[in-house]
Amino acid sequence: MNEHYYAVIMAGGGGTRLWPLSRVANPKQMLPLVGERSLFQISVDRLDGIFAPERIFVVTVAEQAAALQAQCPQIPVENYLLEPMPRGTASVVGLAAVALAARDPQAIMAVLTADHIFKNEGYFQALLLAAFDAAQDGHLVTLGIAPTFPATGYGYIQQGERVAKYQDLNAYAVRRFVEKPDESYAREMLASGDHAWNSGMFVWQVARIQAEFRRQMPELASMLNEISEAWNQPQSESVVRRLWPQIQPETIDYGIMENAEDVVVIPAEGLGWNDVGSWEALFDIFPADERGNIALGGRHLALDTQQTLVFTSNEERLIVTIGVDDLVVVDTGDVLMVCKKDQAQKVRQIVQNLKATGRQYL
Amino acid sequence: MNEHYYAVIMAGGGGTRLWPLSRVANPKQMLPLVGERSLFQISVDRLDGIFAPERIFVVTVAEQAAALQAQCPQIPVENYLLEPMPRGTASVVGLAAVALAARDPQAIMAVLTADHIFKNEGYFQALLLAAFDAAQDGHLVTLGIAPTFPATGYGYIQQGERVAKYQDLNAYAVRRFVEKPDESYAREMLASGDHAWNSGMFVWQVARIQAEFRRQMPELASMLNEISEAWNQPQSESVVRRLWPQIQPETIDYGIMENAEDVVVIPAEGLGWNDVGSWEALFDIFPADERGNIALGGRHLALDTQQTLVFTSNEERLIVTIGVDDLVVVDTGDVLMVCKKDQAQKVRQIVQNLKATGRQYL
Repeated sequence: MNEHYYAVIMAGGGGTRLWPLSRVANPKQMLPLVGERSLFQISVDRLDGIFAPERIFVVTVAEQAAALQAQCPQIPVENYLLEPMPRGTASVVGLAAVALAARDPQAIMAVLTADHIFKNEGYFQALLLAAFDAAQDGHLVTLGIAPTFPATGYGYIQQGERVAKYQDLNAYAVRRFVEKPDESYAREMLASGDHAWNSGMFVWQVARIQAEFRRQMPELASMLNEISEAWNQPQSESVVRRLWPQIQPETIDYGIMENAEDVVVIPAEGLGWNDVGSWEALFDIFPADERGNIALGGRHLALDTQQTLVFTSNEERLIVTIGVDDLVVVDTGDVLMVCKKDQAQKVRQIVQNLKATGRQYL
Repeated sequence: MNEHYYAVIMAGGGGTRLWPLSRVANPKQMLPLVGERSLFQISVDRLDGIFAPERIFVVTVAEQAAALQAQCPQIPVENYLLEPMPRGTASVVGLAAVALAARDPQAIMAVLTADHIFKNEGYFQALLLAAFDAAQDGHLVTLGIAPTFPATGYGYIQQGERVAKYQDLNAYAVRRFVEKPDESYAREMLASGDHAWNSGMFVWQVARIQAEFRRQMPELASMLNEISEAWNQPQSESVVRRLWPQIQPETIDYGIMENAEDVVVIPAEGLGWNDVGSWEALFDIFPADERGNIALGGRHLALDTQQTLVFTSNEERLIVTIGVDDLVVVDTGDVLMVCKKDQAQKVRQIVQNLKATGRQYL
């Protein structure tokens, strides 16, 4: 374990894609979706052996901080960094970089997600350590995922030359980042064989990413600099609170990565990665019966039913399905959702619709 | 209003076809399915002007009697006739005939259902009065329904010669009764133009039907005779209780009508009849929005949804449907059912399945 290695977990997401299970007050990362531990706890657990809890940082929003701290009390409370409000992943990374630079100018940080699942956690750890090696050489490292279908829900990364130095590591110079494509373009990229999905996980030296902020996002960099000067002083919180509303929301991908220099991608295969990005994604996580049905909670009586997932938060509830295929049925007590599996991403439209009329059910 | 005219409402059904809404303790006829009055109350209401409440009889089972009496207190309590247990419609008719014969040897009885809907109640009354006229001439009169699609869920009645005597009345001698057919046979009968659905409603002289019992069901007739002798005496209830378990369950259609003499059918058109025989039947009862969706209770947010009925007993519940067609979604609190509309008759299989494992959810 290298003393300069740190993990930064981005845990501030509002996560509407698993609505009505995930809610504003109980977002995806806090849910014990698989087994008894929440996705956030699982995300912390799988760092065990690489990072001592003192080297794990969590960036979140004030509303979620207490609940996350309660879930992972082993992480020191000062390692929970609070955004006054979400301003995109660029500012999340920038804030973490400020905190890390103050602690260790030689820090190398992994930017990780709080709500993804990896079936092969041992392989994930090995890959992460290899990424740290590459970051130590000054690269901005992106963890890619070798694509298995023409997904339209992820960004893509095109691979260039293989980085010869890393003989055992499948690392490539990045040619370009591609935003979420339409289906035909996704098919093209899948067929090309030289594109990986952008997992949203990165490893880099803190000094290196701060230099990129100064070059590419000078306005944000100057605000981060002001925060940096106040860091560890009594007024730091009020400085953050004053500056944060002025930040233009931006993602790290669009704000930094697309035009960054010396970016390397490691297109991982066989990680068993799942971003739990929709109800449909759950079909790849939970074991199904011989007809492809998955019952989470309650009692499911299925007659002429295939490829259907039923979830209820009420263990006493009987769920009956007759003559249906490819459905997702979700019962949270106040809300009941019945959704065609391949249209589960439209849940967002429902959430938008509800937001327009009030805060009920959100 | 003829002083010998009586109505007998059969209200003992366990009605599993609208499960999970209808339950053993709260069967279909007791549900306020349309508006605020139950199907039973509606069935009584539509007799207004033809039968004084004293001339309306109700045959039911002990478990349901109190609830039915509470719903229609205008009917004298002694007009509620109790079967100790259901034994089919033949014994229901037989028991009612015993009670009516004791009261009025010249009684003519209409056998009516407690859980059907007629859009055109005025026409129903006119038809019923015409049927009484024909019954007064000694015919056993069946109210038929002119078929509108090749239904497999009803029995059929083939019409023979038109009864010339009734110039204004569309009445035919019955050629034969047909039990529920398969689809191809149903199509044939629909195409023939001379078949009507068997509505299960009849009008006849009490003396006439009793003669048919003696001729065709002598065993039942002798038990009914024993009950008749004890009628209006203190021991009548115990006689019924003793004999009823010995009755072979049988329908009036199979036990009497199929081989009865001088049966006449009136194939009614335009009654707006609906037997509320399945969840699918509700699509013909309730007004739908422009996409064919029907929301009963709660709040329905429908995205890319067509021809879907949602019902919830919880007014606060939000039901969301996304990308689905031809579904029935029923939420009763303890049970949630999602069913393809054209497979709603399979609800019975679920009920059978549940019966095998206990009494929960029934």
